[in-house]
Amino acid sequence: MVTRSADRSAELRSPAQIPLRPRVAHSSAVTRTGRIPISDPTPAVPGGFAAKAFAGEVVPFRVVAFREGHDRIGVHVRLTSPMGVESLHRMTALADGTDRWQADIALDAQGTWQYCFEAFADDFATWAHAASVKIAAGVDVEVMSAIGGELLTRAAAETSRPARERAQLKKLAAVLTGGDAGAALAVAGDPVLASVFAEQPLFSLSSVSAEQSLTVERTRAGVGAWYEFFPRSEGAKKLRDGTVKSGTFRSAVKSLARVAELGFDVLYLPPIHPIGHAHRKGPNNTLDTAPTDPGSPWAIGAASGGHDAVHPDLGTLADFRFFVREARKAGIEVALDLALQASPDHPWVTSHPEWFTTLPDGTIAYAENPPKKYQDIYPLNFDDDPTGLGAEVLRIVRHWIAQGVKIFRVDNPHTKPLQFWEWLIAEVTAGEPDAVFLAEAFTRPAPLRALAAAGFQQSYTYFTWRNTKPELEEFLTGLATETADYLRPNLFVNTPDILTEYLQYGGRGAYRIRAAIAATAAPLYGVYAGYELFENVARPGSEENIDNEKYEYKFRDFAAAEIAGDSLAPYLRRLNDIRASHPALRQLRNLSVHWSDDDSVLVYSKHLDGAFTADGTSDTIIVVANVDPHSVRETTVHLDTTIWGIAPGDPYEVEDLITGAVWTWSDHNYVRLDAFSEPVHVLHVTSRA
Amino acid sequence: MVTRSADRSAELRSPAQIPLRPRVAHSSAVTRTGRIPISDPTPAVPGGFAAKAFAGEVVPFRVVAFREGHDRIGVHVRLTSPMGVESLHRMTALADGTDRWQADIALDAQGTWQYCFEAFADDFATWAHAASVKIAAGVDVEVMSAIGGELLTRAAAETSRPARERAQLKKLAAVLTGGDAGAALAVAGDPVLASVFAEQPLFSLSSVSAEQSLTVERTRAGVGAWYEFFPRSEGAKKLRDGTVKSGTFRSAVKSLARVAELGFDVLYLPPIHPIGHAHRKGPNNTLDTAPTDPGSPWAIGAASGGHDAVHPDLGTLADFRFFVREARKAGIEVALDLALQASPDHPWVTSHPEWFTTLPDGTIAYAENPPKKYQDIYPLNFDDDPTGLGAEVLRIVRHWIAQGVKIFRVDNPHTKPLQFWEWLIAEVTAGEPDAVFLAEAFTRPAPLRALAAAGFQQSYTYFTWRNTKPELEEFLTGLATETADYLRPNLFVNTPDILTEYLQYGGRGAYRIRAAIAATAAPLYGVYAGYELFENVARPGSEENIDNEKYEYKFRDFAAAEIAGDSLAPYLRRLNDIRASHPALRQLRNLSVHWSDDDSVLVYSKHLDGAFTADGTSDTIIVVANVDPHSVRETTVHLDTTIWGIAPGDPYEVEDLITGAVWTWSDHNYVRLDAFSEPVHVLHVTSRA
Repeated sequence: MVTRSADRSAELRSPAQIPLRPRVAHSSAVTRTGRIPISDPTPAVPGGFAAKAFAGEVVPFRVVAFREGHDRIGVHVRLTSPMGVESLHRMTALADGTDRWQADIALDAQGTWQYCFEAFADDFATWAHAASVKIAAGVDVEVMSAIGGELLTRAAAETSRPARERAQLKKLAAVLTGGDAGAALAVAGDPVLASVFAEQPLFSLSSVSAEQSLTVERTRAGVGAWYEFFPRSEGAKKLRDGTVKSGTFRSAVKSLARVAELGFDVLYLPPIHPIGHAHRKGPNNTLDTAPTDPGSPWAIGAASGGHDAVHPDLGTLADFRFFVREARKAGIEVALDLALQASPDHPWVTSHPEWFTTLPDGTIAYAENPPKKYQDIYPLNFDDDPTGLGAEVLRIVRHWIAQGVKIFRVDNPHTKPLQFWEWLIAEVTAGEPDAVFLAEAFTRPAPLRALAAAGFQQSYTYFTWRNTKPELEEFLTGLATETADYLRPNLFVNTPDILTEYLQYGGRGAYRIRAAIAATAAPLYGVYAGYELFENVARPGSEENIDNEKYEYKFRDFAAAEIAGDSLAPYLRRLNDIRASHPALRQLRNLSVHWSDDDSVLVYSKHLDGAFTADGTSDTIIVVANVDPHSVRETTVHLDTTIWGIAPGDPYEVEDLITGAVWTWSDHNYVRLDAFSEPVHVLHVTSRA
Repeated sequence: MVTRSADRSAELRSPAQIPLRPRVAHSSAVTRTGRIPISDPTPAVPGGFAAKAFAGEVVPFRVVAFREGHDRIGVHVRLTSPMGVESLHRMTALADGTDRWQADIALDAQGTWQYCFEAFADDFATWAHAASVKIAAGVDVEVMSAIGGELLTRAAAETSRPARERAQLKKLAAVLTGGDAGAALAVAGDPVLASVFAEQPLFSLSSVSAEQSLTVERTRAGVGAWYEFFPRSEGAKKLRDGTVKSGTFRSAVKSLARVAELGFDVLYLPPIHPIGHAHRKGPNNTLDTAPTDPGSPWAIGAASGGHDAVHPDLGTLADFRFFVREARKAGIEVALDLALQASPDHPWVTSHPEWFTTLPDGTIAYAENPPKKYQDIYPLNFDDDPTGLGAEVLRIVRHWIAQGVKIFRVDNPHTKPLQFWEWLIAEVTAGEPDAVFLAEAFTRPAPLRALAAAGFQQSYTYFTWRNTKPELEEFLTGLATETADYLRPNLFVNTPDILTEYLQYGGRGAYRIRAAIAATAAPLYGVYAGYELFENVARPGSEENIDNEKYEYKFRDFAAAEIAGDSLAPYLRRLNDIRASHPALRQLRNLSVHWSDDDSVLVYSKHLDGAFTADGTSDTIIVVANVDPHSVRETTVHLDTTIWGIAPGDPYEVEDLITGAVWTWSDHNYVRLDAFSEPVHVLHVTSRA
């Protein structure tokens, strides 16, 4: 666990964790307000849910604390680890008139942490400030010295201080009682003494805030590069008779090397279960289906089984386990889809009709959004037998956990009760703390956020629809600040359902721009297979691929494309390399937007202080992206370098991690970004003045 | 108690209060989330304090509620009055994608109200929507009719519905079972049936939020026009020997008619207690004091008494009571200053030295802000004997309540513990619910807001320092929204401590502009005597009046100035008249900022729906202010008239309540505002198309 004070000036950088003191009880039984008012503690989550972090995440703890008048206060955050170990961390006042205090702390141990804030009257700091001013002005010299003497005598009597320190304090107290103005002034300004009291303050009044919870999940819950493919396409073969032999888990194993070599570490598979035959959809979501059409994997359930079975075309459960094991060997974790709906052929339809809605005419209600009908899908009814259905879903999730899967991408969670998810995720993670659920909630902001707050470890977001500079500035800042205590964005650049107009019409530049931003702006991002081939033709009038893989097999020759220079793979590989070697990119909350004079040149930086890196050196990445894929832009970017500990105007070296170019930069810099070649700088600050 | 739905369209204006239903228990014991998620309830106050309203205030109740999928929900707010009477109010969805629901409710009874939100699946609305779409398209006609029949049969069985309604529902159920598509479509679209279910919904699933508290205080806590004068100046006479005979309560009584005639209804007196002699300050805060200098009223306490005494120069306690009674007869309530500090001559200094800070040299610490000294003032120490000092302050406040005073303007509350104020105000209002405390906390935003949240009924704000159009737009909007649940701004235009550069250098236009904005933007505003005389000369280098009344008597001839045309009194009188006749101006939360093309022309409106006015007609005031006191501005203002129920483009009549001019306006209007004559339009919408 590492702390860093929020203040950027070197001399105020606090010495991390400080000696533990016993807890002070909250003094007031009568008022809500403590003697030193404390309010607005964060991390905090709407609705009172526990805040979230991932192992290794640097979390800014903040609180508002002040006292009446001019006397100085200090504030600590007190952490209790999941093992019950307490630690105290000094906070720094943000010098912006907000009375907010901050300490950045990297949390390591997985589990539920408790935290509270303790504010106290900083008696020594109050005296030292007043004494410095007054004694220097020759005012009240004797009285100020005497007060200081009393304070140091009181401190020297504190048995919690080391004997040597106590002796030294006693000596200084005597100096103050001596009455020599110069000596007293020296004591008041003594930096060693100040640091002694910074480490163990001397205080009379104090307040403690209420305890709050923060759940630290495994690093993979918050950091990962995702890749999505349909296993049935991986190794699928066109036969002479025009039909297709489906890819299998065994054939898909051969694609693992490609995915690993691209640098992805999570591989998400659309549903792998038997697919229904009733009302099966044909190519491009049509109703006239040939017997050989494979159907949508989301139409789950057939005679051969439901959510706990694998599609016979893909192989056996043993084959699946083999696939998962081989993936793990390649450094890849497999994520499964959890789509809680059924085809009319699902075993539940006969065994548990109470889990569906039966209409007055005796039929089961299919999915619809009047007047649209989705007759191949029966939605579940969560209200008639919530206990039974809940137990079944829990059984299914645990079944897949038993097969080695711990990550679940949840299909349309916003069409099921929020209450159900809160319950399910709590149940699952109680037994498997490494479980991760990604919410595919493409819905309004309130339910999207509520799902995250209620327990989902990751969320799809509106990223694909945030393409202009102002949109991205607001969107990325919001993700790094407003919702970061509970919502972990997974910035997918495309999905089988989403091929935005930006990608359809933006050319290859658009693919580069979106990948570079997704990979650097958040620690979680994702790519659906085909993105690297610039697949950009949509079904007319829609924002999804034509000949959608949801309804048919895809045959992609990634290697040939790369040889021909028609692949984004090298670029993705480079981005994933950069992510792997730069810890600043594996944090969520460290993004700062900077100014550029061009309305399409987006600038942000990600910075991680040396206190939190393995080698102790700060890691600073500056991303400058021309988000107009149709133009070349030249402009000046204006950077607040103080965020990275570089004084305004000081020069520093940057290296473009994409091209290898090296420049000397300062706070105002010329850039030229050509959407047709390299639309994005990913700059690393390689040396500081 | 009156409700209005948040939706502006006439047909959705909800029929206020609806029939009471028994409470539904919160269904979930396992999850935080209810079956229908409910979150972000407001009114709400940081720190969990009770929200505030004043009797007659229209309070927007808001909450976020949604459910999974597309089914319709409804939301109620359930109020429990201080007498324990419950009422249910239907909320309206804000059609802005935020899943927020709103009901505007005017609260009448003083005391503590409870409120909670109930969300439910609106089974009829869900069916009616699906049925209208599907039956019209000839899809699932029989099934949809059958489902509707089941719903209406269920509703007809609800014994809480009137017998006639139940019979009618039964009949309609039979129509639906009849299977005629046209008839079924008519039932689904029947507005009468819709309103039956709007009033008493048919629902299966529901959730209830936690109970919250809201304190309704008397109207005067939230609405008032304040005037401030020093009673010692009112009737003060210069004697032949150059000395001054102080004004008294008896002579000040003669000024009450003037104040009442100006239209003010609260008169605030700076401290009326004996003034210390030790280190008494002379004119312009100097240290060389003549024996005849009256001293600062804030240096409280002398041989003749402390905070419970009146200054002998002003008369006796009986004289004071007479003054309070005479004021009341004139329609004016007297407010006293509560300045918790003492002169060195205060009786407490000898009787309770523990209420001060004694220094090592045995002297008592005076106020200072090193290196500045305020030797005429001893600050109180609230930590050595908090119980004793608290009891004494409570005794003093109750003493003045016994003299007929219920409003206290608290001097520098941010230099005393917040905890103390929370305790004191709760203690005082428990015995005297009409007590009102105004916080003079000219400090940082966090303590300013915390004092309001902890109990102060009113707050001075940064108003005097918000003078440009963008500053005012942000500031006034914040007061009407962000902090309105707990902070009631009292917009003083000047004080004995504040004469801003805007007033010093803005000429008479500046005085008009600031008065017009203060009087119309918030229901509480204030003026310190002399403002109407355009007193604008500051002590050089400061933002306060030269020859400050704090240290000397003032002789002002208001009548002569008015006769000479050198007085703002007629303008103030007009403003107070307008406030008295326009209920929209006596609300806090109904302010909307509108656009103008000029960077100094500020536009806002205050609107009160007819549901909340005595005569049932809506009251709409549009203020257009040229805030540049040095120029004439011509521009176009662009108004969102839908806020007032006027369709875009529709014409309406406005009357300028200052000049009597009448215009036909629409949503885009030309204005010309001359800072040297009439810098502000205060327009009343007198007729609508």
